Amino acid sequence: MIRKIQNALISVSDKSELEKVLRSLEKYNINLISSGGTYKKIKKLGYKCEEIAKYTKFKEMLDGRVKTLHPKIHAGILCNRSNKKHQIQMRRNKFKNIDLIIVNFYPFQNTALSKKNSNSVIENIDIGGPAMVRAAAKNFKDTSIITDKKDYGSLINQLRQHKGCTDLKFRKYMASKAFNLTAYYDSMISNWFNKELNINFPDRKTIPGKKLAQLRYGENPHQKSSIYINDFNDEETGLRKITGKNLSYNNYNDIYKGLEILSSFRQTGTVIIKHANPSGAAINKSPIKSFQESLLCDPISAFGGVVVCNFKITKKIAKEITNTFFEVILAKKFDKDALKILKSKKNLILIDISKFKERKNYQIKHFDGSFLIQDKNKKIFDLKNLKYVTRLKPNKQELKFAEFSMNVCKFVKSNSVVITNKFSTIGIGAGQPSRVDSCKIAVEKAKRFRSRKLKSSVAASDAFFPFPDGVKKLIKAGVKLIVQPGGSIKDKESIDIANRAKIKMIFTGVRHFNH
Amino acid sequence: MIRKIQNALISVSDKSELEKVLRSLEKYNINLISSGGTYKKIKKLGYKCEEIAKYTKFKEMLDGRVKTLHPKIHAGILCNRSNKKHQIQMRRNKFKNIDLIIVNFYPFQNTALSKKNSNSVIENIDIGGPAMVRAAAKNFKDTSIITDKKDYGSLINQLRQHKGCTDLKFRKYMASKAFNLTAYYDSMISNWFNKELNINFPDRKTIPGKKLAQLRYGENPHQKSSIYINDFNDEETGLRKITGKNLSYNNYNDIYKGLEILSSFRQTGTVIIKHANPSGAAINKSPIKSFQESLLCDPISAFGGVVVCNFKITKKIAKEITNTFFEVILAKKFDKDALKILKSKKNLILIDISKFKERKNYQIKHFDGSFLIQDKNKKIFDLKNLKYVTRLKPNKQELKFAEFSMNVCKFVKSNSVVITNKFSTIGIGAGQPSRVDSCKIAVEKAKRFRSRKLKSSVAASDAFFPFPDGVKKLIKAGVKLIVQPGGSIKDKESIDIANRAKIKMIFTGVRHFNH
Repeated sequence: MIRKIQNALISVSDKSELEKVLRSLEKYNINLISSGGTYKKIKKLGYKCEEIAKYTKFKEMLDGRVKTLHPKIHAGILCNRSNKKHQIQMRRNKFKNIDLIIVNFYPFQNTALSKKNSNSVIENIDIGGPAMVRAAAKNFKDTSIITDKKDYGSLINQLRQHKGCTDLKFRKYMASKAFNLTAYYDSMISNWFNKELNINFPDRKTIPGKKLAQLRYGENPHQKSSIYINDFNDEETGLRKITGKNLSYNNYNDIYKGLEILSSFRQTGTVIIKHANPSGAAINKSPIKSFQESLLCDPISAFGGVVVCNFKITKKIAKEITNTFFEVILAKKFDKDALKILKSKKNLILIDISKFKERKNYQIKHFDGSFLIQDKNKKIFDLKNLKYVTRLKPNKQELKFAEFSMNVCKFVKSNSVVITNKFSTIGIGAGQPSRVDSCKIAVEKAKRFRSRKLKSSVAASDAFFPFPDGVKKLIKAGVKLIVQPGGSIKDKESIDIANRAKIKMIFTGVRHFNH
Repeated sequence: MIRKIQNALISVSDKSELEKVLRSLEKYNINLISSGGTYKKIKKLGYKCEEIAKYTKFKEMLDGRVKTLHPKIHAGILCNRSNKKHQIQMRRNKFKNIDLIIVNFYPFQNTALSKKNSNSVIENIDIGGPAMVRAAAKNFKDTSIITDKKDYGSLINQLRQHKGCTDLKFRKYMASKAFNLTAYYDSMISNWFNKELNINFPDRKTIPGKKLAQLRYGENPHQKSSIYINDFNDEETGLRKITGKNLSYNNYNDIYKGLEILSSFRQTGTVIIKHANPSGAAINKSPIKSFQESLLCDPISAFGGVVVCNFKITKKIAKEITNTFFEVILAKKFDKDALKILKSKKNLILIDISKFKERKNYQIKHFDGSFLIQDKNKKIFDLKNLKYVTRLKPNKQELKFAEFSMNVCKFVKSNSVVITNKFSTIGIGAGQPSRVDSCKIAVEKAKRFRSRKLKSSVAASDAFFPFPDGVKKLIKAGVKLIVQPGGSIKDKESIDIANRAKIKMIFTGVRHFNH
């Protein structure tokens, strides 16, 4: 179904690249209707154009809030060209068909992001524009809708190919883009309102995504993939790539896990991620030591991993890093000499995270036809709620060790057991369906790579021990302080074992499942 | 800021419960404007009401496509009551303020779901309604917008409390709900178009969610959570709960993992899930055997897990199931006697999945301010691309075993190594940052619970072996056929070891990371 374009209505916030379209429209004797800034621009470029107010014979009012919300405009867009009754009504009203709409919106997110007050945000919500876009997209069988200046070229091609007409395939695709835009636009507004009102779980939640990049592939080469951003600031993720190839799906997956853990550190620290689990993590006054300790936890698993640091990479640290093969290094800046050293490593991706910040206080998990929203897990434990269940009690310093231990543990996939020495992990047991297996893995890792650190170590468990077997295993390995939520019917047995072994155990009452 | 309501426009698809609002509006002498079915309903209920066409002096046209898209309506909604210029313009045009809009849409998804053709879907896209809703929500400082009949009660309370007025807090909250609705509505339309056009990665992707239930809590008790559904059929997830308490976040997480695996089985089978990983899986002509085999793989981890079956639960199977403590059983129906037995178990949740079907061909993973979309991983391997790398080659039957092994393996969190015997898992090694550790765990599990099945077993690895250590470990345990993607620079060493041990190995070329 080819449709001739006789009348076009243009109303664009972004006026760049308009001229090439105007030139093409003029060529096919298409009448232009417009108003305000777009009208002025068209006239300035030397093209004929009728003002909307003249066209509708209705003077725009309320500071432009009402100009296109008029039957003559909307009937022109919505009229079914194949319906005789519609055609008669149009003639009776002396309305003309409007066959092409070119509209783009003032970007809502720019206002929302800037520090203007909420009045200004609301003032910038476009009403007339989306109404026309939606009307034209609905009536794509007859009307062409362009909402993206990237599509000016295709429109011009259509006009050329079909001599001033467009075809149905083009119009339907443009209609899909139009509804993608209105959905995105209203989703931004809706999320802005929910944020203003502190509503995390509205009756209807719509998550807007703007494609940031098509990825080489997904988790595996046979899966296609793209990354989308859904914040108001839709220009960037806060990750500034300095060098290296494009990030892959698995890179992003590991990077975000690393940033999540790093965001929980208030001190200088490093996390190394492999397969979305930490292979090691440490905080230390000395940046280089925090890196070394993270690496030492499991230098074999760290191979090819993602390193995330909350400090600046100096020459010295860079040299240390290049002793191991990593895929990605993220840090708060890299100094010149460091860059020189790191750039010499082929295929190493460097990312500056100085501008990264956590944006949401909730997280979302998707399934096939549904999703779960939950508050982020921001707690570790409350000192005042701790239960000192063994005869021996940890001192203040040991409580800090326990806090670090549990903090890392809560980011490891459940069931998770983490063994730490001071502020370094020395054994991480991840993702086992039974807790004792996670204990076993953590102990084996620690024995293999950091056996001397095992005595007087601390162990954290993300949930209670259903049986005392895990506790036994940890004690046998040298753990001297166990931090766990408690709450098992077998707690008494675990406590007895701890007491007999003269180690310390504390119950936090706070579970940390993470899947 | 209290705002008096003098004029209200009502246009509702769902006309139930309207009368209680009308009664309240009449009490405060509020003039009503309406049209079509809503107008008739109001008159029938005995209330005064002016027709929109009379009010605007513009006869509705194009089968109702254009009636409220009129300056008199939209200026009435959008005019700023505190702005003198606006007031003067309104008086000059003889326009009145419209202070309250009550609108609900014809549910788009009902049409999209029903088997009507796409013309009918498009015809049902509402243009005038959303335009009014958006206008009123934008101007919430002056205008009240009601989009949900659940809010009739609050509106009536407002009118009562403020003597025919509404307050700002109410209006802003209602505005947030209005934009939540328009975003959701357009997102449904946008996704419908993308599906029609087979576009999985549009420039802008918006994911609509309708709250299905507030959950008791999230992954942990200190996290709030709700579940949303985002399909056209927004009434149900295809999971019909027969008995038991409300599903928790972790239940959903496990259930969807189980359904994902089960959907990949073409034969009768069972999967048991714990912490979003399978603790065992089996296919078998005999339903009860498939359950027994799944359980035997790791009866300790299965404790408290989620059982997912693609068959009907009979009395015999129910008896077998009740020997172990599970949280949830999902099956394609339960017969009467089975129900009696299972219902006697306190706290056991039973779910009928007869109506469950996979809906999307893509999956989404969320991070803080972004999300990744990728095609679902629907492949296992192609027979024609297999590389038979050892001197001994598997026969047809063994290839079927290898296919089962890799099929389960691809759903286990990476790095994953799965050992199977025929069509039953006997050892699952999940979620380790290094592959040899996953081998170790799989072997230990198999030795512990199914040691006799180890000889002549099959092992699948989701990615290549970077070193031959994992292969060695598997062979030593009794594995006779290894299926893996291949592609490591150390492949030769692994192949040599396999040949020396006289076992079979095949390379698929298909990696199956899953995080």
